[in-house]
Amino acid sequence: MSPIDYKSSGVDIDAGNEVVRRIKGLARSTFTPGVLSEIGSFGGLFRLEPGRFEDPVLVASADGVGTKLKVAFLANRHDTVGEDLVNHCVNDILVQGARPLFFLDYLATGRLAPDVAEQIVAGIARGCRANGCALLGGETAEMPGFYAAGEYDLAGFIVGAVDRARVVNGSTLQAGDTLIGLPSAGLHTNGYSLARRIVFEELRLAVDSTLPGMGTTVADALLAVHRSYLRAIEPLLDEPGLVRGLAHITGGGITDNLPRIFPDGVGARIDRRAWDVPALFSFLGQAGQVPVDDMYRSFNMGIGLIVACRAADASHVITALEGSGEAPRIIGELIAGERRVTYVE
Amino acid sequence: MSPIDYKSSGVDIDAGNEVVRRIKGLARSTFTPGVLSEIGSFGGLFRLEPGRFEDPVLVASADGVGTKLKVAFLANRHDTVGEDLVNHCVNDILVQGARPLFFLDYLATGRLAPDVAEQIVAGIARGCRANGCALLGGETAEMPGFYAAGEYDLAGFIVGAVDRARVVNGSTLQAGDTLIGLPSAGLHTNGYSLARRIVFEELRLAVDSTLPGMGTTVADALLAVHRSYLRAIEPLLDEPGLVRGLAHITGGGITDNLPRIFPDGVGARIDRRAWDVPALFSFLGQAGQVPVDDMYRSFNMGIGLIVACRAADASHVITALEGSGEAPRIIGELIAGERRVTYVE
Repeated sequence: MSPIDYKSSGVDIDAGNEVVRRIKGLARSTFTPGVLSEIGSFGGLFRLEPGRFEDPVLVASADGVGTKLKVAFLANRHDTVGEDLVNHCVNDILVQGARPLFFLDYLATGRLAPDVAEQIVAGIARGCRANGCALLGGETAEMPGFYAAGEYDLAGFIVGAVDRARVVNGSTLQAGDTLIGLPSAGLHTNGYSLARRIVFEELRLAVDSTLPGMGTTVADALLAVHRSYLRAIEPLLDEPGLVRGLAHITGGGITDNLPRIFPDGVGARIDRRAWDVPALFSFLGQAGQVPVDDMYRSFNMGIGLIVACRAADASHVITALEGSGEAPRIIGELIAGERRVTYVE
Repeated sequence: MSPIDYKSSGVDIDAGNEVVRRIKGLARSTFTPGVLSEIGSFGGLFRLEPGRFEDPVLVASADGVGTKLKVAFLANRHDTVGEDLVNHCVNDILVQGARPLFFLDYLATGRLAPDVAEQIVAGIARGCRANGCALLGGETAEMPGFYAAGEYDLAGFIVGAVDRARVVNGSTLQAGDTLIGLPSAGLHTNGYSLARRIVFEELRLAVDSTLPGMGTTVADALLAVHRSYLRAIEPLLDEPGLVRGLAHITGGGITDNLPRIFPDGVGARIDRRAWDVPALFSFLGQAGQVPVDDMYRSFNMGIGLIVACRAADASHVITALEGSGEAPRIIGELIAGERRVTYVE
């Protein structure tokens, strides 16, 4: 038997260290005043600005990119999935009223390609900068035998904060409240197993094919970046009580996500005619002959975030959202009844 | 073409919801007073006990279990890797003086087996309870085509806190300071690619084989749980200035991890005769003919955590550690010179 060293066993600590060096520069570009980077080491250190919150509650969430990554592999485009991940996480804590403080990533791969890792983290850093969120740390794991060549998995963890009195949790929602939808940019990060099956297996399209009738490539359509709603929603959160509930439309669609914020005895009626479902969703639905109920439970159908407010506040909320460059639509209302969504059309 | 629904595309939202229900009960068993669980939803909410810290600094870390998971797959034993992960994360922030507040996990698999997911999360919950750390949330991702049948990846994210004036960062370390080692319980979570190659490929042992000369099975030896040093180190942290530096010995071994806490101009001399290297490491080194320098850079070699203190405080620190049930050993000292480890033997 010849001697075995660590590198020959499939793990290259030096390549790992090279990636760490590159990542450090990218992370530094995201640093906010809260980062005590001069004393960072095994863990990242973050200090909440004194006085920024009266009675701060930390809000944390973990997420992945899901099988959207498979599209990134096919397209060999690795600089957008990080932004998807950050924006997904930002929205998940935003819906409870929290502003992001810091983010950490977990990147796992079979054999580390430093250039790919750098592209991935560049996307994460771009997303962090855009959301005023520090990339405080992360783990890059080389796991021989876990991932196919050229593949990886990517997860993210975010921590934000909100004053305890301003937590948004849907507890004050009542029948008669108005539901306002904000447009998504595409599939965001959900429904990719279904979309990939339709596009690549049933239609046998290639990643650089033009999507029939859409004038865009499969890659561009399927890799459109998950939007962050932070900048649009932030001004509304400064008016206590205005926003009564926020739902991020992720896996499970409007059908499963909206009821998560309802108190007992409150349901929703959503009018499917209230917005134009983007062509990508209609295309997927028709090509895959997907039952309409499955469509609304698999995809966001063009609505990435739903804001609930009193009917009397709706025009004020819409004006404020339009002022932030959004295209809000009233898509339904709350009704008395079971904690579920009823669609009308 | 027959209609495609979400379930037939490889994702089972109902199975996912069943897992979420089981996980919720396990998570609840870890809750501490800081968890505002009554208002939890898209993100987990945590409130730092007012008055517990004067000027709190949050310390965060992300980690994975690495290829130790492959041993868990072979042994079909899924209830310990979660504890490995929690303890690894706890130690990573402990070395900066932080006590854990909350933990989130990311569990990714090809097709979700609710029983396996429950075992994994049961291990996480056990680790969280033992460390007084709330399991605040997590993500369970079903990703068809990413993981081999029966396999999964697991990552963790921890947030703790330390008073700013009590951050442990090695900045006061000086030549002459004493290095005290605390025993590991085995490989912890590092060196598994190398260990697996030696045990399974070169020696062709099975996971239930008895390790030659060791009276224990491969599974028991390789799945021994990563220790948490929280309970041993906590009392020391209550004496300001006593602990001048802490290093968690993970990937890269003593060789790469100890220097991470050194200020410029400080190195370490480690006496390899100062402790008995556990039989598992000697066995792996001999069986794989692994060069000794690679051994100390791949494995913890029986030392899971290193405490640095002034030489004058060493006996006090050792007595305190022994009082916590530890078996501390003086393993070396700091010296003037490059930020590296020199071994003597």
